[in-house]
Amino acid sequence: MKFLEDIRIGDIDALGSHVFTAEGIKSFATRFDPQLFHTDDDAAARSSFGALCASGWHTVSQWMRCLVDHRRLADEAQRARGEPVAKNGPSPGIRDLKWLKPVYAGDTIAFASEVVETRDLPHRPGWGLVTMRNTGTNQHGDLVLSFTGSEFIERHPQD
Amino acid sequence: MKFLEDIRIGDIDALGSHVFTAEGIKSFATRFDPQLFHTDDDAAARSSFGALCASGWHTVSQWMRCLVDHRRLADEAQRARGEPVAKNGPSPGIRDLKWLKPVYAGDTIAFASEVVETRDLPHRPGWGLVTMRNTGTNQHGDLVLSFTGSEFIERHPQD
Repeated sequence: MKFLEDIRIGDIDALGSHVFTAEGIKSFATRFDPQLFHTDDDAAARSSFGALCASGWHTVSQWMRCLVDHRRLADEAQRARGEPVAKNGPSPGIRDLKWLKPVYAGDTIAFASEVVETRDLPHRPGWGLVTMRNTGTNQHGDLVLSFTGSEFIERHPQD
Repeated sequence: MKFLEDIRIGDIDALGSHVFTAEGIKSFATRFDPQLFHTDDDAAARSSFGALCASGWHTVSQWMRCLVDHRRLADEAQRARGEPVAKNGPSPGIRDLKWLKPVYAGDTIAFASEVVETRDLPHRPGWGLVTMRNTGTNQHGDLVLSFTGSEFIERHPQD
């Protein structure tokens, strides 16, 4: 994690990508979203989606996994260079979560996070609020997922 | 599913509840949100949460599971009474998703959905848009999850 002062509006982090397999789609959906177009190939083929597709909650949970993995690697690289690593606080929330196109079995979704606002918090010394627009894009270049999230990010200790 | 005309602002569906076990919290987090306060009891005890707690994406995915189960039972009851069942379309999205308090291992979360708006869609005959405020509440009566979602709901075929 970067400190607040090192984060700029327009910064984009590519968070990596994930291939949604039929097996992964079904195992998520069996536990959390057992609608037939997420769990059964034949029923999905007859549905308005036309083929097995991922639960929207699966897609966004996979975004989270890519974010956590990306940050872990970034933190390790910062520590390896002897740089301090900023802390972050729990997210105050998510706005405007949209599933714009279905994610089908076999699709590769690339996730990204773009900084759209940084804000000082006069009532919370040592911290700022960073707002990001998060996206998932499939192998055809179609946006499949979009949402805005904020989180508290530590300021440089010396400031 | 009820048809659009049978849905009233203020209608509340109790969607059932779920006990978040340590095992369930860890299995979700290992796959989708492997931060130590979601995967490791000792590290969680030392974190600002103070104990193992569920990923926010796990909490909201469990809401989805309760919704799907609730609707399946409601549809079966409607069919058993010989009543037709309305179709619904994909959700255009989610607004203002907030995780208001941590969900700890052992917590029982009751999920509910309240109709806050119903709207005709002049450009989409046969369908309306229903907006719901969705919540999760723990065994102490604390709100832990809140978000607003919309979905397309079929009108009565005879209208």
